[in-house]
Amino acid sequence: MKIPPVKGTRDFYPQDMAVRNWIIDGWKKVSVRNGFEEYDGPIFEYLKMFQLKSGDEIVEQLFSLKDRGGRDLAIRPEITPTLARMVNQKINSLPRPIKWFSVPRLCRAERPQRGRLREFFQWNIDIIGVEDGLKKNLADAEVIFTTVDYLRKVGLTDKDIKVKISSREVLANYLRSLDVPEDKLEPIYVVLDKKNKLPSETFEQMLGEQVPDNKIVNKIVDFMSVDSIPQLEELVKIKSESGEYSAYLDIKMVLDNLTMMGIKDFCVYDPSIVRGLAYYTGIVFEVHDTAGELRAICGGGRYDNLLRDFGGPAIPATGMGMGDCVLEILLREKGLLKPEPRELDYFVACIGFIGEEAWRIVAKLRSMGYSAAFSYKAGNLSKQLKEASAQKAEKCIIIGQEEIEEGKIKVKDMATGQQKKIDEDKFFEELKSESK
Amino acid sequence: MKIPPVKGTRDFYPQDMAVRNWIIDGWKKVSVRNGFEEYDGPIFEYLKMFQLKSGDEIVEQLFSLKDRGGRDLAIRPEITPTLARMVNQKINSLPRPIKWFSVPRLCRAERPQRGRLREFFQWNIDIIGVEDGLKKNLADAEVIFTTVDYLRKVGLTDKDIKVKISSREVLANYLRSLDVPEDKLEPIYVVLDKKNKLPSETFEQMLGEQVPDNKIVNKIVDFMSVDSIPQLEELVKIKSESGEYSAYLDIKMVLDNLTMMGIKDFCVYDPSIVRGLAYYTGIVFEVHDTAGELRAICGGGRYDNLLRDFGGPAIPATGMGMGDCVLEILLREKGLLKPEPRELDYFVACIGFIGEEAWRIVAKLRSMGYSAAFSYKAGNLSKQLKEASAQKAEKCIIIGQEEIEEGKIKVKDMATGQQKKIDEDKFFEELKSESK
Repeated sequence: MKIPPVKGTRDFYPQDMAVRNWIIDGWKKVSVRNGFEEYDGPIFEYLKMFQLKSGDEIVEQLFSLKDRGGRDLAIRPEITPTLARMVNQKINSLPRPIKWFSVPRLCRAERPQRGRLREFFQWNIDIIGVEDGLKKNLADAEVIFTTVDYLRKVGLTDKDIKVKISSREVLANYLRSLDVPEDKLEPIYVVLDKKNKLPSETFEQMLGEQVPDNKIVNKIVDFMSVDSIPQLEELVKIKSESGEYSAYLDIKMVLDNLTMMGIKDFCVYDPSIVRGLAYYTGIVFEVHDTAGELRAICGGGRYDNLLRDFGGPAIPATGMGMGDCVLEILLREKGLLKPEPRELDYFVACIGFIGEEAWRIVAKLRSMGYSAAFSYKAGNLSKQLKEASAQKAEKCIIIGQEEIEEGKIKVKDMATGQQKKIDEDKFFEELKSESK
Repeated sequence: MKIPPVKGTRDFYPQDMAVRNWIIDGWKKVSVRNGFEEYDGPIFEYLKMFQLKSGDEIVEQLFSLKDRGGRDLAIRPEITPTLARMVNQKINSLPRPIKWFSVPRLCRAERPQRGRLREFFQWNIDIIGVEDGLKKNLADAEVIFTTVDYLRKVGLTDKDIKVKISSREVLANYLRSLDVPEDKLEPIYVVLDKKNKLPSETFEQMLGEQVPDNKIVNKIVDFMSVDSIPQLEELVKIKSESGEYSAYLDIKMVLDNLTMMGIKDFCVYDPSIVRGLAYYTGIVFEVHDTAGELRAICGGGRYDNLLRDFGGPAIPATGMGMGDCVLEILLREKGLLKPEPRELDYFVACIGFIGEEAWRIVAKLRSMGYSAAFSYKAGNLSKQLKEASAQKAEKCIIIGQEEIEEGKIKVKDMATGQQKKIDEDKFFEELKSESK
């Protein structure tokens, strides 16, 4: 009986796993050097947790299930609700700011397509509990810096990618200044988020469904095409007085901070960034390939109300999520995927049927921390040496009847071909002193 | 709105995550040094894949769900069926033997109890495609050696744990010699697997339900209490002639191999080991704490028919699975849990409000591969130095107005307290040469 894998999932054979590990190890290393600590939650939570704040798109894509008591659960489509739950649970004992990262496995019942699968890994970094206004900008900047720190580390330059930065609050204030009613804001975000993926006619038509007044539609379209800070300043200065000055200053300050951190050339203001998730409240950003051929490589932003919405105190937060699928496509196209090659310290070969001696030596090497292999095929010596080369062995230990009788082993350096005979005891004594 | 986590799942706060990472990193390291390559599959598969061969207990504990097309899926309760599927898919291009490992996240809808949760991580190692009889014994021994290699590495001794080894084939042959019908074997395994968890009366009664003849029940009970190889040899030699000699020799050979590999003192023959999973065909084993206070730490064995049952060729296989829950309890009790402490290379402190300079230096250090932090709190210098100590910073960089004007920084060694002033450019030049 042959059963296929489920569409939209991946099998990670060793060479695929090496790529996945290389990507995830890079995420972890950069998180740690940027001061984030790792956390994780369960693969499933109560269904309602994901229905609460994530927005319709995510809710439609949930893999839901029931436990044996009939309670509704769902496999996590994102980890931010879990983060909010976990932080709320221990809010009084956690020193702030909370700087955490995670690399959760996530599932979404999407139509599988290029860069979008039903199961993927997503790097998440979040800074929670920075309260002061200017420092909030710094936290947003640190999230963006950490993101770029990774992308730059794997070899992407400001010619390859751009961080596009905007603010939900600036947008909200602008929409309010046009007398757009409060309950229309969220549906409008969903339309605006699709702007770059739709033909402009379709986009304007969809916007028109939310905003009946054509003049206002045009004003929103104009706002969405502003692409410099001075232009934006002009627009929001003229417009109204209900608070958008400070929101506009957030963008300016975050960009200033990023300049200070040395990644100015990666960052631009771009009002078309709105983000699909419902819970963003301030600065939002996405990283895109400059060629514009792929979906967003990652996205994030400020979500100051989420902890409160999950029953906790009102504590500001900001974060970023980067999936592995689009990233892997981009890095592969640019020739930047560099998984660690397999390494083998010792291959133990034997002449004649004295396998037991080989296993004894292999076991001893492994116990001391060295990687060691032998052949299950028991071919002749040259076949075993071929196997050793195929496994990229650094050194080969060769034993025959003669060596066993003398208590010696032959050690062959596979790079130079040099070979020496040495007392087995002495060999292990020397190894011990450089033991792993 | 406060939503709790699902019962039987775990939240991994940073200190819990450090323990999980330490356990999993150890598994990975030992797998690699023993010549196993990492693979992984999807978190869910078609439901029927797990119903096929895993046995009733697992099927009852499945978390099942539907995709949007209404197809029945399940979260994986074990990874061996996925392994069989993946190997079958590429059987002609994979060099043999296939030595693979994985650390899947698994879910089972069990009643949560000590050492058993609904979601856990399980180290799996498997050797597939060793065909010859004696080499099959070697493969079984290598799986057991690798298991012990890990347990010994984390500090467990043969006083703490024992590998209990038995053979399903020896048991099957013995049952056949008592004229137990073929279709009763599997239900009997399930009862025998529970022997050590049940009062002997209950056990014998349950056995009686499968085997009506009381004399045969007694013989099975006698067989299950044999605890030495010579005794076993006596029993199977007397009994019949349908092949159990070779099966008995498997146990003897595996134990001989393990002696050669230097872990004789960890290993014993124990006929009470039967294993719950339906697909085992030969050698089976479990590792138990000698105090007998915990469930099995791990278990495994030979499953020569599974690939064929999944629509592939008949290729022999052997493997082991070790969950993280019981292991963590045991290691904690023995004081052997040693998660890596958090490390910080540099903490950058500043005097007065010159945070921008601090972020600039922090960003530069991180980009060069060093872990670096600063304070969001902007307290005075002594508060910042306290924060640096709390974060276990190795060195502290201190900048004030004076330093900035001179283009210098102060570098303080947090262990010795020694402090020196140095040109910033020179400092980074020197760092570069030892760059991470």
